Amino acid sequence: MNLSAHILKIAKAAKKASYPMALVSTKEKNLALIRMAAALETHQAYLIKENAKDLAVAAKANYSKALIDRLTLNPKRIASMADGLRETARLKDPVGQLLETIKRPNGLVIKKIRVPLGVVGIIYESRPNVTADCAALCLKSGNAAILKGGREAIYSNKAIFKILKDQLKKTRIPVDALQLIESTDRQAVHELLKLDELLDVIVPRGGEELIRFVADNSRIPVIKHFKGICHVYVEAQADLNMAHRIVMNAKIQKPGVCNAMETLLVDRAVAKKFLPSVITDLQKAGCEIRADQATRAIVKDGIKKATEEDWRTEYLDLILSVRVVEDVNQAIEHVNTYGSHHSDTIVTKNKKQAQGFLDAVDSACVYVNASTRFTDGFEFGFGAEVGISTDKLHVRGPMALEGLTSYKYEIYGTGQIRT
Amino acid sequence: MNLSAHILKIAKAAKKASYPMALVSTKEKNLALIRMAAALETHQAYLIKENAKDLAVAAKANYSKALIDRLTLNPKRIASMADGLRETARLKDPVGQLLETIKRPNGLVIKKIRVPLGVVGIIYESRPNVTADCAALCLKSGNAAILKGGREAIYSNKAIFKILKDQLKKTRIPVDALQLIESTDRQAVHELLKLDELLDVIVPRGGEELIRFVADNSRIPVIKHFKGICHVYVEAQADLNMAHRIVMNAKIQKPGVCNAMETLLVDRAVAKKFLPSVITDLQKAGCEIRADQATRAIVKDGIKKATEEDWRTEYLDLILSVRVVEDVNQAIEHVNTYGSHHSDTIVTKNKKQAQGFLDAVDSACVYVNASTRFTDGFEFGFGAEVGISTDKLHVRGPMALEGLTSYKYEIYGTGQIRT
Repeated sequence: MNLSAHILKIAKAAKKASYPMALVSTKEKNLALIRMAAALETHQAYLIKENAKDLAVAAKANYSKALIDRLTLNPKRIASMADGLRETARLKDPVGQLLETIKRPNGLVIKKIRVPLGVVGIIYESRPNVTADCAALCLKSGNAAILKGGREAIYSNKAIFKILKDQLKKTRIPVDALQLIESTDRQAVHELLKLDELLDVIVPRGGEELIRFVADNSRIPVIKHFKGICHVYVEAQADLNMAHRIVMNAKIQKPGVCNAMETLLVDRAVAKKFLPSVITDLQKAGCEIRADQATRAIVKDGIKKATEEDWRTEYLDLILSVRVVEDVNQAIEHVNTYGSHHSDTIVTKNKKQAQGFLDAVDSACVYVNASTRFTDGFEFGFGAEVGISTDKLHVRGPMALEGLTSYKYEIYGTGQIRT
Repeated sequence: MNLSAHILKIAKAAKKASYPMALVSTKEKNLALIRMAAALETHQAYLIKENAKDLAVAAKANYSKALIDRLTLNPKRIASMADGLRETARLKDPVGQLLETIKRPNGLVIKKIRVPLGVVGIIYESRPNVTADCAALCLKSGNAAILKGGREAIYSNKAIFKILKDQLKKTRIPVDALQLIESTDRQAVHELLKLDELLDVIVPRGGEELIRFVADNSRIPVIKHFKGICHVYVEAQADLNMAHRIVMNAKIQKPGVCNAMETLLVDRAVAKKFLPSVITDLQKAGCEIRADQATRAIVKDGIKKATEEDWRTEYLDLILSVRVVEDVNQAIEHVNTYGSHHSDTIVTKNKKQAQGFLDAVDSACVYVNASTRFTDGFEFGFGAEVGISTDKLHVRGPMALEGLTSYKYEIYGTGQIRT
């Protein structure tokens, strides 16, 4: 069978399974998740053996240390993957939730009910635990899942998938509701992205290049964020000690993630007082500073000039661009012009300025007096995270179980006809 | 300026205006709507004069009577268009609605707030009142709107737009938040559909050909339904008098609309008792019947044979396909296989069968004991309708003001950092 026919077959099987999948009880889904968790732990040796094959390829190919670390499975990580499945079992089942009841004058009762999306495609890069996480979240939300992991983790992904699927076979859940695309050919993704009659949504998880490839080539709706260019704006009436802590946290604690700060905006009124010490501490932490003229007039040592391009750049690294702004309006304009509509913070004691910033900044998550680093499904209390969306349709910000659902209207009549 | 640059200019202006537009107060928006309504009535003569130009072109081009009727403006229709704007002014403003408050153990307070989508593109066919309706709904929901009507109504659309825009200029609402593409070149739509950095959503309203064109060529998310292949299933325990009334209503009352029935499914147990009289009455009403073998074994006169293609066809006309099914499961399978996930009904006195159908049929609106014709924003009590969605992302079923909104998280901290 050629690749195109093979992908079509997988998608058709998932679509067919999605109908009975949508009706599976919470109890049955939770039981499957708990069994899957146990099976991952039972088959620890097998997982580590298969993972070693990926690691051998990675060593030969001279992959970066960071990538090899992300790829690696060990007993602790397997236990954590299993715990993730147990955690998902404990989450509230979103399916069947009554969202609204409308009673019409003609006697019709319209119930808006949460239902699964149907068939969810998830395309991700190297970390093998995503296979288990995403399978679990789709299962819990009553969706059929088509998973496509990165080729770097292919042996690990196949092994995890086999363990999960074997457990699924022991339940009354349709086994075809869980699918893994084993081909490592990028053409496989291309073929999948054409199947808008069979898939309801695609979630790409990975670097910007992968996400752009999926968004540019998909006929299926995509939930995504390209990048996280997050800002901290230190307003004129900020508690400068608090601002210092927030800036350090947003930039330094984990610079390689999408909710880390990339640009610091400082109000002219406090620039002289605030910038010298924070820049010194950032530099001590190994952070490179690229700043505008006004900043460089205040702090001179080892600061590069920021270009227009810097305001649009997601460094994902220990680099920070810094700009002095005249007031909250200029800060808002900067964020809306150069940002990526992900996560932005104002630090201020002035409630009016804070609310103005919260309302006018067009981002998924806008903070006052907190680090941008909290944009995360777990930190928001969702108990899970499929990804983060900077789209405005369907789901915005952290995407968890609810983001994997749609709704339908169930309408109860007593013979009503339209006149 | 070439077309591509012209469309880009329009979209950029709308995008820029969308930021202040999102912050306009309900009072200001309602005032604008009420003034626009009055202005449409004041300029009745001008509107009828401009409309006459479209009608003259239509007469020369030998357009169908139905199309000419849809195009025509008269004092009654202008008054009704104005009333539509006043009605929109009375609707609840969705913007700013607090959807959820999450309090986290670390003290963060996360508020989920309804916000406008941003820039909404609406592409529609001939009826000129859509220009006023859609402008009003986008305005009320705080969005910037880019409208592109059919070339058949170009003079009428330009006249309506001019009147609305003149009123906007008298308010504090950014005038660029309302845009009309005057070019009648389809290339203009093509250019618009590329601008995924500037538009947040496209809603195509019209025939399947237009909607496919938009869906196939858009890089912007599209909310749509291609067709409405709606079913009525008469179950074994149906009240057959009620079933008769529902079938007649769903097929005959307005056959050219997307929520009209296209296929009738009848349980074998009641087929002999139910089909003869209902088919006679449908035929009396001018309806052509295309039926399966089992139906034709019961009723013979003037019935065509249904082909596989019939089950997949939206007639939008006085034609009905009829099939006898063995049970509710076969009915569900038929609807999920051949339907368009729009609106489907079961007629039955058996509550268990009804609930099984409601849960298993994968459609936006699933009814028990009512006509499919109720799928409509006004009939659902939404007070408006932008369109109907058979998509599962963002909005499903009738789309009204809420469908024109997204949400954002506003997060209130006291200096929280992530550890």
